[in-house]
Amino acid sequence: MSKELGLSVKKSKNFGKWYLDVIQKAELTDYSVVSGCIILRPDAYFIWEEIQKFTDNEFKKVGIENVYFPLFIPEKFLAKEKEHVEGFSPEVAWVTQAGNKKLDERLAIRPTSETIIYPSFSKWIRSWRDLPKRYNLWNNVVRWEFKHPIPFLRSREFLWNEGHTAFATEKEALSEEKEILGIYKKTTENLLALPGIMGRKTDKEKFAGAVFSSSIEHLLPDGKAIQGPDFHYDGQNFSKAFKITFLDRNKKKQYVWQNTWAITTREIGVMIAVHGDDKGLVLPPKIAPTQIIIIPIYNSKTKKSVLKEAKKLGKKLKTKFRTKIDDRDEFSPGFKYNEWELKGVPIRIEIGPKDIKNKQVTVVRRDTSKKEAVKTKKIILRVKNLLNEIQKNMFNKALKLLKKNIHKVKNYNEFKKTLKKGGIIQTCWCGNRKCEDKVKNDTGAKIINIPFKQEKIFCNCIICGKKAKFIANFAKSY
Amino acid sequence: MSKELGLSVKKSKNFGKWYLDVIQKAELTDYSVVSGCIILRPDAYFIWEEIQKFTDNEFKKVGIENVYFPLFIPEKFLAKEKEHVEGFSPEVAWVTQAGNKKLDERLAIRPTSETIIYPSFSKWIRSWRDLPKRYNLWNNVVRWEFKHPIPFLRSREFLWNEGHTAFATEKEALSEEKEILGIYKKTTENLLALPGIMGRKTDKEKFAGAVFSSSIEHLLPDGKAIQGPDFHYDGQNFSKAFKITFLDRNKKKQYVWQNTWAITTREIGVMIAVHGDDKGLVLPPKIAPTQIIIIPIYNSKTKKSVLKEAKKLGKKLKTKFRTKIDDRDEFSPGFKYNEWELKGVPIRIEIGPKDIKNKQVTVVRRDTSKKEAVKTKKIILRVKNLLNEIQKNMFNKALKLLKKNIHKVKNYNEFKKTLKKGGIIQTCWCGNRKCEDKVKNDTGAKIINIPFKQEKIFCNCIICGKKAKFIANFAKSY
Repeated sequence: MSKELGLSVKKSKNFGKWYLDVIQKAELTDYSVVSGCIILRPDAYFIWEEIQKFTDNEFKKVGIENVYFPLFIPEKFLAKEKEHVEGFSPEVAWVTQAGNKKLDERLAIRPTSETIIYPSFSKWIRSWRDLPKRYNLWNNVVRWEFKHPIPFLRSREFLWNEGHTAFATEKEALSEEKEILGIYKKTTENLLALPGIMGRKTDKEKFAGAVFSSSIEHLLPDGKAIQGPDFHYDGQNFSKAFKITFLDRNKKKQYVWQNTWAITTREIGVMIAVHGDDKGLVLPPKIAPTQIIIIPIYNSKTKKSVLKEAKKLGKKLKTKFRTKIDDRDEFSPGFKYNEWELKGVPIRIEIGPKDIKNKQVTVVRRDTSKKEAVKTKKIILRVKNLLNEIQKNMFNKALKLLKKNIHKVKNYNEFKKTLKKGGIIQTCWCGNRKCEDKVKNDTGAKIINIPFKQEKIFCNCIICGKKAKFIANFAKSY
Repeated sequence: MSKELGLSVKKSKNFGKWYLDVIQKAELTDYSVVSGCIILRPDAYFIWEEIQKFTDNEFKKVGIENVYFPLFIPEKFLAKEKEHVEGFSPEVAWVTQAGNKKLDERLAIRPTSETIIYPSFSKWIRSWRDLPKRYNLWNNVVRWEFKHPIPFLRSREFLWNEGHTAFATEKEALSEEKEILGIYKKTTENLLALPGIMGRKTDKEKFAGAVFSSSIEHLLPDGKAIQGPDFHYDGQNFSKAFKITFLDRNKKKQYVWQNTWAITTREIGVMIAVHGDDKGLVLPPKIAPTQIIIIPIYNSKTKKSVLKEAKKLGKKLKTKFRTKIDDRDEFSPGFKYNEWELKGVPIRIEIGPKDIKNKQVTVVRRDTSKKEAVKTKKIILRVKNLLNEIQKNMFNKALKLLKKNIHKVKNYNEFKKTLKKGGIIQTCWCGNRKCEDKVKNDTGAKIINIPFKQEKIFCNCIICGKKAKFIANFAKSY
């Protein structure tokens, strides 16, 4: 067989090349005939379905309802909120024709759905009794990035959830921030084994149209940060632009208070990038399409009996775990090990004549490569514990790496020197846009967020030397 | 309260008006600011999620895998299969600009995804070992209908599944027809309580690019047929256009054999149309967002004790069924009855002081309006059985209505006379396109399908008088 399994480069040598290599060779995605648009092959889509299911279930627990709105936004509606249209229009894909007819008004393909949803909110919301509205969509959006697209991390079309909520009071709207980011934290940490830093974006970096934005920021192995799930408090910006009003309990007309929030297929890319190694993907057990791969080891004499035992074992494991048996005759066990390691399957079980004689199997962990013999009758319990251990170990390893790459600095020289090594730099900032811009111009780094967990200010603003207001996280960023 | 609950017209008087009235007043959908594009409000989206979950589970049982492909199709790829592009291009929405840039090549918004998926199939499929490929997508598609759009039934954007499969042999490809239509039959009959007629489309009515198409056809209360879920056998039409080849076991290059198939949000509209009545929606229990509504009946003296009992009952029922309590103080019980009837909730439970004294509640079925007293301690079991009965009764009622509206005729005069009454006409057809066209020109009716269950030919072709080949189903159609 002429399958090219090996990755062409080590992750530590050239992360960018490794990433593009692994996502294709592990058959998660592939380039399509439309530049920068995403294909999710079965394993990648499975992972997305798991992210959806888990997150959606958390949404439903707190009373959020799913809806669907049109893909298209008439130009005049997109333009209703000034900051919003300015932020998005450079990236909008426009429909101008249908069949042979030129449309009277261009239609934007939604880059986000505020401006197609809120005309309906304005119609449906009349009284305090209609509030809160807590709606969510699982859909596709298009942002025609002109920067170099990278599958999952930055693609021109992506899948996501978009939450759109309206409340009677500012207080209620604001209290949603913790709840939603808490759900996203569960998804990223518990499901994808991905740590992150939660915090507030600066005014410069907020969502176009929001009062403020907050997010979970991840760190990639190349030392650059990347924005994960986010939350935007819109105040009354959109409700004023779209006239979303209600009569309060005192029959007084009020504008609603709004939020939006999202998690996207980008998380799949972050997960690949953070956990993968030189052999390929390493998938957290909770989202692995295949959790256990059984490889029977036999020669022509032992084939029949080994396959029989392997199938018996497979049948047993399938009742509890996502299990496959690789009984392809045309590949050697060694080749199969490599292939399933490339695909990131958390547990490999080898079963050969000796194992059968000893009533055991050989179990190999993908994350640590550790091998152990397990008695066949104890296999279910052992595998269950191992999957949990792997999940935990992967998170802890990623967290350790993140922490190792958060650097504290006290002056601008140190900042510049440290930035060259990559990672996140925590330092003191006066809160002034001028200083933020200067760092960007001087170094290319930006403020990824102001972490919610603020420790004591330990220096003056490293740029202007004036009194610092915040400890901010700086990094080069995707 | 000035809520407008009542429907403005009876279903039997003006079905079209009734339909548009009920879908809005029951808050399933609403008009958006983009003409002909769909909004699925929470209850409608819930129903779609149930259709998806059920159908997807059936797909997975037979080994179908979910994937995602881009929204956009470059014009030259859409054009690769001649019949396909001719069929779809009059309805394609075209993206011609991104940001401020004119695109070099127009991009079609997918009206269906053959032409964006098959370039990848051609890349991924190399050997018989790569087959079969059985992929499915849950996504949104756009067909810019210039006919009058009707929410759910004919909208310019809709949600659906699209299956795309490739097999090594014609035989395997053909055997998928029964399997997939069998799954759709389960979804429509078991879940939505919707009967239909399964059969083969004529060459004139087949999918653009297919060798043949088959479908489940429904009948709406206005006497017009509407196509439900469908299956298309594409033979090697697309594999030749897109060069999807593989080496067979003898190392000979072969083209794959392909199918596509779909179920859409149209089914929601069919379900509303078939089951609804003059009071509003009647929802099959299996997909009803709320299965039980509890209405407490009290005055100022009994309020506290009744609400307490209602909540206790609600808590108990919620563990098994989708249950709500309507404890709004500002509405009378009568108003609430009307509202939940409008929304089609299958079971209403009334609980008042007398009921409490007698340790019972009053249970009312939405489908038959029948009332019964049920002892509180037996409520779970009774409700469970009732929901099953309602589900069955709704299907049987719809089936009876369908059967009543299938008319057998033996000559063209009788055909024309019968057609005026509406419904489906079963009669004999020679198989010739000329006769099919003549009927369409003369009467507006078309052949909706040639039912799989063919009975004995009972007359000559009613149009040309020559020997008939098929019993065909004719109807006016959406």
